[in-house]
Amino acid sequence: MARVQSLNPATGDTVELDINESSPDEVRSLCEAASVCAPIFAQQLLSSRAELLDAMASELEKGATSLVETAMRETALPQGRLEGELRRTAFQFRFFAQVVLDGAFLHVSIDHAGDSPMGPLPDLRRMRIPLGPVAVFGSSNFPFAFSVPGGDTASALAAGCPVVIKAHPAHPATSLAAFEALTRAAASKNAPEGLLGLVFGLDAGVALVDDPAITAVGFTGSVRAGVTLWRQANARATPIPFFGELGSANPLVVTNAALDRAQEIGAGIAGSMTLGVGQFCTKPGLIFVPTGSRGDELVHELAASLDKLDSMTMLSPGIAQHFREGVDAMANISGVRHLVGENKEQGTSSSAQLFEVTTLGFLDPSSADLGEECFGPVALVVRYESSDDLEHALDHVAPALTFSAFLADNDKDGSWLLAYGQRHAGRVIVNQFPTGVGVSWSMQHGGPWPATTAPAATSVGASGIDRWLRPVTFQGVPSDVLTLALRDDNPLGIPQRVNGQLSTKH
Amino acid sequence: MARVQSLNPATGDTVELDINESSPDEVRSLCEAASVCAPIFAQQLLSSRAELLDAMASELEKGATSLVETAMRETALPQGRLEGELRRTAFQFRFFAQVVLDGAFLHVSIDHAGDSPMGPLPDLRRMRIPLGPVAVFGSSNFPFAFSVPGGDTASALAAGCPVVIKAHPAHPATSLAAFEALTRAAASKNAPEGLLGLVFGLDAGVALVDDPAITAVGFTGSVRAGVTLWRQANARATPIPFFGELGSANPLVVTNAALDRAQEIGAGIAGSMTLGVGQFCTKPGLIFVPTGSRGDELVHELAASLDKLDSMTMLSPGIAQHFREGVDAMANISGVRHLVGENKEQGTSSSAQLFEVTTLGFLDPSSADLGEECFGPVALVVRYESSDDLEHALDHVAPALTFSAFLADNDKDGSWLLAYGQRHAGRVIVNQFPTGVGVSWSMQHGGPWPATTAPAATSVGASGIDRWLRPVTFQGVPSDVLTLALRDDNPLGIPQRVNGQLSTKH
Repeated sequence: MARVQSLNPATGDTVELDINESSPDEVRSLCEAASVCAPIFAQQLLSSRAELLDAMASELEKGATSLVETAMRETALPQGRLEGELRRTAFQFRFFAQVVLDGAFLHVSIDHAGDSPMGPLPDLRRMRIPLGPVAVFGSSNFPFAFSVPGGDTASALAAGCPVVIKAHPAHPATSLAAFEALTRAAASKNAPEGLLGLVFGLDAGVALVDDPAITAVGFTGSVRAGVTLWRQANARATPIPFFGELGSANPLVVTNAALDRAQEIGAGIAGSMTLGVGQFCTKPGLIFVPTGSRGDELVHELAASLDKLDSMTMLSPGIAQHFREGVDAMANISGVRHLVGENKEQGTSSSAQLFEVTTLGFLDPSSADLGEECFGPVALVVRYESSDDLEHALDHVAPALTFSAFLADNDKDGSWLLAYGQRHAGRVIVNQFPTGVGVSWSMQHGGPWPATTAPAATSVGASGIDRWLRPVTFQGVPSDVLTLALRDDNPLGIPQRVNGQLSTKH
Repeated sequence: MARVQSLNPATGDTVELDINESSPDEVRSLCEAASVCAPIFAQQLLSSRAELLDAMASELEKGATSLVETAMRETALPQGRLEGELRRTAFQFRFFAQVVLDGAFLHVSIDHAGDSPMGPLPDLRRMRIPLGPVAVFGSSNFPFAFSVPGGDTASALAAGCPVVIKAHPAHPATSLAAFEALTRAAASKNAPEGLLGLVFGLDAGVALVDDPAITAVGFTGSVRAGVTLWRQANARATPIPFFGELGSANPLVVTNAALDRAQEIGAGIAGSMTLGVGQFCTKPGLIFVPTGSRGDELVHELAASLDKLDSMTMLSPGIAQHFREGVDAMANISGVRHLVGENKEQGTSSSAQLFEVTTLGFLDPSSADLGEECFGPVALVVRYESSDDLEHALDHVAPALTFSAFLADNDKDGSWLLAYGQRHAGRVIVNQFPTGVGVSWSMQHGGPWPATTAPAATSVGASGIDRWLRPVTFQGVPSDVLTLALRDDNPLGIPQRVNGQLSTKH
């Protein structure tokens, strides 16, 4: 059984962790424990579940110094970024505690027995119940916020589901330390055994998706790995929902009328596309800019801003290698001009890259790969002649997590661009940059296929809890054995729809 | 191109309809028209959409006499049943008009820009938008309520999606007449062109699922056809959600303590399992009854009630043939006693059938097929010795649309049976029968795989609309170009969550 290695991407140093990759038996045993835990955890009071989530936030905060140090060594991400990410991650647990206490996520609806145009109807009470054990696949790029203690874990626990997490190989020591913080919190709240599991290794991930106890999967990562696991989830004897957030090229459009702000927008794009060394799934990767001198000015400012940047350290040698291959492929497509970047670096070091192409070159069938996401600090500027030309080019862009438009007041292109954006993305942004995905009630982090495998779901924000629930209707169940959420006197004080009328909490 | 035939299952007479099965070009053309229609229909006011649904209800009612006559000839279902089904179908359109006007289905959430523990957050506004053209596959057993003018069509239109419907071959003339009623209503309300399409033929159904304009599928039918089409939907270049309601064996348990009502329950089961000639997806097909004399009394009453029934006409020769094959297979499993029914009838004629087996026989690996749904007036009684014996047997029953338990007051078996039921079914019923699926806010008609292909969805009730929607967040969009649902002054008067606080309509 292979030992788990922790690599410092800045120095190339490795540390052998005192653990092996998880064996099939270990995976099975954690899933079985989660399965035994599931009905017990599901029946706990919402207030207990909220306290558990709060305790997890506190344990992450208590361990912050050590967690950030470990993550710095393993990811080469700067201290400030990791401290901020850990704050966000702790906040995310507290936020989901509020979502749990709010209770609207249960979708309670009560219809008392009575007459209808179809004849008499029985007493019907509907709510959502937790699915059961959830498998979570941590990402490479956010060692906290989208990994072991990330949004998938927090939302699944909030829904009432045990989780078994597959650690990302780019940061195993951070994964283990974060997992231990969560298990300390669980122990302090006497959570039922089997609530949390952690596995290491590619084979363990495959075994996890196949395990009969697993009822759903949350995944953040590449299209290749995500689609493979999605297929695997569908090929099970009992297929299960697979919520994969697979990233996208995130088109950003600057209209002709918005070019009054050419310099400001150009500099802003440079900041957005290199945030986190371009290793954000919301990085704007396709930048549509009008032809002409004011468009040139924007591109010039963007290029100049990128040129000023020092070379950066990527998350792992594999990611850096993929990045260099992607950049080389782009540079070799005829009609594509390489505006910024040398692409001659080694190891995990890389410098920002910028390319430019006309819509004609972009639409050439031989350059179909140009529209694909290249993970890292690179973007392709597509220069368009007119609104029609832009619309035609956008029709050939794959759906994305985000669509950004820089517009002027009363911009003639505003209306159709907003309409386009909502058909092709999960988040439509005006005069702002797509990087930055706040944890809030109104966030949507998802998009049409292939940006995500389940476009009606989000992996960030309150609605992330929806993924781990399933509705059940109770018909004619005597009130003394009804679960509290469905009782007429509403002892939990949660929103209930009663005979069609929605009422907020008492 | 094959002509479409309409068959009278009672007499065997056929009528040739003046239509062909739909060609690939016709399917493509209807899907393209739906695609053009989709953004126009999506932007109409909710009040217009509700008026359209109301108009469809009225047109169905206006055409009731002729629709019911046509359906009687094609399905051999009795007049009273079809009249009731058409009333329900019209009501369903009116009900979805109310769901549309209610507006909660949009899931509007507004977070104003402000500070958070993660730093400043932008203005974020989230709502659900229609997916686009939806393909609907009508069922055999409900020529109105689950066919052309059924719940899938009504809920998809309510969500703002055009529909292209594949008519079931068991009732093509009824399908065409119902479709014409819907198109008359659409014309009377100046609905955009391409809103409704109808196709005939197996190949047309396959082409429909593959058409790039189709964004989701609603299906009611057999496991075999449903799983095949679900695979096809997943194998597309852009996979789409497939909401298949595939039926199930619907276990029904009578506890020892409930046997005081042995005769009443036995007679009730006979009525429930033969309603609609047993051709309901909620038919109780597995009846768990204690051993001993009071259990014998229940089974005796059930058998006697079935014995009194005349032979019945099934929906089509194919369904009757499947039914006879299923009954023969059950009769040939060793340990299974055939209590009621001759199974020697011909054509579409059939008589009620009842079988009995011990838990030992039921759990024998060679009788694994016993737990599968057999569509038609047949049930298998499983006699159990004790609660442990019952629990062990239930653990080998596939998940289902419904789970029914007949309990006494303070029944010692109540608690674990309710817990079992919600894990294994979409609707849990106490002291009532599962047949009858009312259109209401609190209905859930779905269940874990393989009862449905999307266990978080329902094909009946207000939440049926959820299947055809996808959330989008708008970030930083100026208020003057925001869609009405997302505006601060809430001109639509719909429920909005604002900065985390849910408020009902103004």
